[in-house]
Amino acid sequence: MSKTMAINAGSSSLKFQIIEMPEEIVLAKGLVERIGLNDSKFSLEFGDTEIEFTQDIPDHDVAVTILFDQLAEHKVVDSLEEITGVGHRVVAGGELFKESAVVTDEVIQQVADLGEFAPLHNPAEAVVMRAFKERLPHASMAAIFDTSFHTTMPAVNYIYSLPYEYYEDFQARKYGAHGTSHAYVSRRAAEMLGKPYEELKIITCHLGNGASITAVQNGKSVDTSMGFTPLAGVTMGTRTGDIDASLLPFLMDKLGITDVNEMVNILNKKSGLLGISGVSSDMRDVENAAGEGNERAQLALDIFVNRVQKYIGQYVAVMNGVDAIVFTAGIGENSATTRAAIINGVTTFGCDIDPERNNTRKEAIVSSDAAKVAVINIPTDEEMEIAREVERLK
Amino acid sequence: MSKTMAINAGSSSLKFQIIEMPEEIVLAKGLVERIGLNDSKFSLEFGDTEIEFTQDIPDHDVAVTILFDQLAEHKVVDSLEEITGVGHRVVAGGELFKESAVVTDEVIQQVADLGEFAPLHNPAEAVVMRAFKERLPHASMAAIFDTSFHTTMPAVNYIYSLPYEYYEDFQARKYGAHGTSHAYVSRRAAEMLGKPYEELKIITCHLGNGASITAVQNGKSVDTSMGFTPLAGVTMGTRTGDIDASLLPFLMDKLGITDVNEMVNILNKKSGLLGISGVSSDMRDVENAAGEGNERAQLALDIFVNRVQKYIGQYVAVMNGVDAIVFTAGIGENSATTRAAIINGVTTFGCDIDPERNNTRKEAIVSSDAAKVAVINIPTDEEMEIAREVERLK
Repeated sequence: MSKTMAINAGSSSLKFQIIEMPEEIVLAKGLVERIGLNDSKFSLEFGDTEIEFTQDIPDHDVAVTILFDQLAEHKVVDSLEEITGVGHRVVAGGELFKESAVVTDEVIQQVADLGEFAPLHNPAEAVVMRAFKERLPHASMAAIFDTSFHTTMPAVNYIYSLPYEYYEDFQARKYGAHGTSHAYVSRRAAEMLGKPYEELKIITCHLGNGASITAVQNGKSVDTSMGFTPLAGVTMGTRTGDIDASLLPFLMDKLGITDVNEMVNILNKKSGLLGISGVSSDMRDVENAAGEGNERAQLALDIFVNRVQKYIGQYVAVMNGVDAIVFTAGIGENSATTRAAIINGVTTFGCDIDPERNNTRKEAIVSSDAAKVAVINIPTDEEMEIAREVERLK
Repeated sequence: MSKTMAINAGSSSLKFQIIEMPEEIVLAKGLVERIGLNDSKFSLEFGDTEIEFTQDIPDHDVAVTILFDQLAEHKVVDSLEEITGVGHRVVAGGELFKESAVVTDEVIQQVADLGEFAPLHNPAEAVVMRAFKERLPHASMAAIFDTSFHTTMPAVNYIYSLPYEYYEDFQARKYGAHGTSHAYVSRRAAEMLGKPYEELKIITCHLGNGASITAVQNGKSVDTSMGFTPLAGVTMGTRTGDIDASLLPFLMDKLGITDVNEMVNILNKKSGLLGISGVSSDMRDVENAAGEGNERAQLALDIFVNRVQKYIGQYVAVMNGVDAIVFTAGIGENSATTRAAIINGVTTFGCDIDPERNNTRKEAIVSSDAAKVAVINIPTDEEMEIAREVERLK
């Protein structure tokens, strides 16, 4: 019995799954929320059992302790020895981590040092790695970086039109994100098409609360919509995506904001679908409101579709063609209407959706037989990808 | 004899042409530079005569006085009565000016009030309008707005994914620029193709020191790459174009900059081709340096081409097709290699350049006969467009 834990630590959260490997069976999953705040929330699901309670959890180290106490108390594992692998998702790998890495003390320090590129995530992830290493010294541990898949981008796509020394001195460049997901669904798309991954031009649309679009050419990420941080690219739940940087001083002046970080915080947390619609950051709420005649909600939907279409167009240009367009993540997998709206507006590229096939939340080719460009729905599974990486590096 | 003056006032400059209308013959042209600075420079060309001198010119009003003194002294006009029309280019027309306007005291005040959208330009333009109105009370005067052509954009393209009240309260939205040029070259393209302007999908690439790309569908601008200000869009001589807004706090921290305006100033004046190459903001200098093996200069060229290609892709998506791609302005008209590099990378859209036809700086269809999408070179003439607008509004 070999169990692998997939760990996804955020600034105030800790998501986990326990997966039987290599069988790829999810045994348990759960979430610790509001770490470092009052009334932190712990939840755990396994078999038919659901556990949920609220208590103050001051930091990630305590969160890990509570997690292991709960696993023991409810006999989710008979012994910690059963857990032979742990995979940690890391947001920022910079230029250093071109692929997943076995976790050593040095790697933990490097992850902490990369905190300047992801101040809310990397430091928390380093703490969680240390906590797991102490409690599971026997387990194989791997760090899986959100950015690794994109380290194959050519300079022409990752260098900004800034003074070049900002790249040399401060590594200010495009890094992208959601790499694990883009890698997984693009590879899977090639399998589904029965064509060599290394010979395809694929555009992957990871559309969740965070959203990014990637151009995958010959099995490699050549461009992606998120930038130096996950703020850039398409409209998201609460994030603006691309805007004119001149808006910052203009809005700061209008709003009486003196700290640019406060302004960027608004761009990250109060914008996107939420900001346009005024209703919610959740696509389902926005769709419902639009259905009831809310014009700003409808505008938010239209803008979301429009921005994804524009990135599809960009990446057709970047690769000078496209063989397949893939949808994944919360919105991408589940909203047939969003997929249809996006594809029906860019039929010039040779894509054509089959409404009946598209009426699904499962893995499926949803384009018509006449289409030159395949449109594919693929539920992503970042936790499974993480577990696979742990196995691969064992 | 009816003479029209086309006036283009910047924050510290004043460009002018005197055009015989309706014959459209340029009689004289000139430039006042460094207004408000030491050693201001005045230059004037007419017939075979070139006049140039340096003297302190403290403000735009004095610049206009000197201009008229010079016109009289050199008998460029026999009497001011001959000047029956004046057209003023205005950078920001906001949502107010959907087309050119006859200049009244109210219009001048409105132009001044729109200064918050173009603080370096609109106030100077208002001063110049007043100065001309005093000196040429008999002449028909029109204001021609850089933004008017883009006021036909649908909300889905001009609304940012920001809190919606920033649009309602502060008119923070996409306005675009270079409208006179995009209007002129798109209409001319339809004429050259012998097809109805109202039935075409045209992408116009105005590539000068400032650069913008516009999607013109059925004779109307439906999207454009510049944004709230001319900072956004493609890489320019000294401007970044689109970047991740998160770079602002990151770079300000690294550079020890506390004023966000100072940071945006770097994005406007020290970035783009200049910033990447470290050589120059002038495409010709960058091309020369690249030719001599300068790698950063080559990267700057590659990035410029890449960003234009990405906007072409975006606008093929926005219009769900394209009939013609038009190049204009300093780089667009004159650099056959840049045009070829851009088009040769996006042949998937059905465009194909003819190298021999492309070897021109003149008005010409430069695509091959086999191409589905016409590629057209059209020298722009914003001053002539301005003069025509004056005639139209007389």
